[in-house]
Amino acid sequence: MSDVINHLNWRYATKKFDASKKLDEEKLNRILEAIRLAPTSSGLQPFEILVVKNDGLRAKIREVAWGQSQVTEASHLLVFAAWDNITPARIDAAFDYTNEVRGFINEGWEAYRKQLHGIVAARGDVANFDAAARQAYIGLGVALVAAAAEGVDSTPMEGFDPAAVDQILGLKERNLRSVVILPLGYRQEEGDWLVNLKKVRRPKDKFVSEIV
Amino acid sequence: MSDVINHLNWRYATKKFDASKKLDEEKLNRILEAIRLAPTSSGLQPFEILVVKNDGLRAKIREVAWGQSQVTEASHLLVFAAWDNITPARIDAAFDYTNEVRGFINEGWEAYRKQLHGIVAARGDVANFDAAARQAYIGLGVALVAAAAEGVDSTPMEGFDPAAVDQILGLKERNLRSVVILPLGYRQEEGDWLVNLKKVRRPKDKFVSEIV
Repeated sequence: MSDVINHLNWRYATKKFDASKKLDEEKLNRILEAIRLAPTSSGLQPFEILVVKNDGLRAKIREVAWGQSQVTEASHLLVFAAWDNITPARIDAAFDYTNEVRGFINEGWEAYRKQLHGIVAARGDVANFDAAARQAYIGLGVALVAAAAEGVDSTPMEGFDPAAVDQILGLKERNLRSVVILPLGYRQEEGDWLVNLKKVRRPKDKFVSEIV
Repeated sequence: MSDVINHLNWRYATKKFDASKKLDEEKLNRILEAIRLAPTSSGLQPFEILVVKNDGLRAKIREVAWGQSQVTEASHLLVFAAWDNITPARIDAAFDYTNEVRGFINEGWEAYRKQLHGIVAARGDVANFDAAARQAYIGLGVALVAAAAEGVDSTPMEGFDPAAVDQILGLKERNLRSVVILPLGYRQEEGDWLVNLKKVRRPKDKFVSEIV
């Protein structure tokens, strides 16, 4: 068993958080740092993380998230928001920043920048948002392991109205669209119907196949 | 620093694999197990992992993947393939299996099954595939951490023609669509232009924002 497997076995989609237990900022920051380090296609990192600390806004989000209690009772609420489009300016900002950090301009990298501009223009807005959303889910996968490694419970949630959350958080003005939310905190075992149920995953032979 | 952060800092998108170094099956199995344990929306696990061990097929995939050498030179090649649609039969198989493993039928769970049938029917094929693909990326995020935790290099790759890969691997007949491929193995530092370059990620203040 590796630690990663242990972490994944420990975690579960927490249904009831203990509202009195707060996550300390160091743990939160390590989870955020893991998400920031997640790799993404062409290194664009086409999403942002919002840490919603305003109780009134969390209550409003809960209203458009089937009333799920985790939204307000967890210690912290992360919102993964993908770029609404992959624009030339966003590509250039990422490529320019890479050049700045590395301190030189690489010809192959610059040729790839041009190619990427073409790909993204040909693909169109809808497919670009979709591609950005997928990258956010790489970050989500990393976040789930990182949280568990800190002994922090988490519940990835898609059961909300993204357009409503975008409005509550003013995301449209930032050219972002919410794709998944992640309450973080500590389970309250009493009152959590899932905590003692067996984790269910398809058996390996129905999930992995070898092509020989 | 947590281990997860260390793992993420260690890894990079390996450009040159050492074709002579093979991943042992135990490490491979732990990486696959971590992916299998990744959580997914409604627990559907709407994707599968293909481990392509046939050299001829890997050569064909390389041809439709811009000729990228990792496809044939890495020790192993994983293909993440999402369900082409989320069908009633697939939902029922997942829910029935959950009941079987847990040994009882939960009323709330059954009510949710009905609701999910409605959601998926209303959403339509295209959005269902898209939702399935996102879940595969949770698995990808987990895989990247799990591989690094084993000291195994990996290169998430979207630069391939998914329809061509589907045809090469016979995925259409299995109602699957390739979404991302992941060569696994060991870096060959000589000849890898990226290995010694600085990892670039947007600064935290451009990636995370607090809403207070």
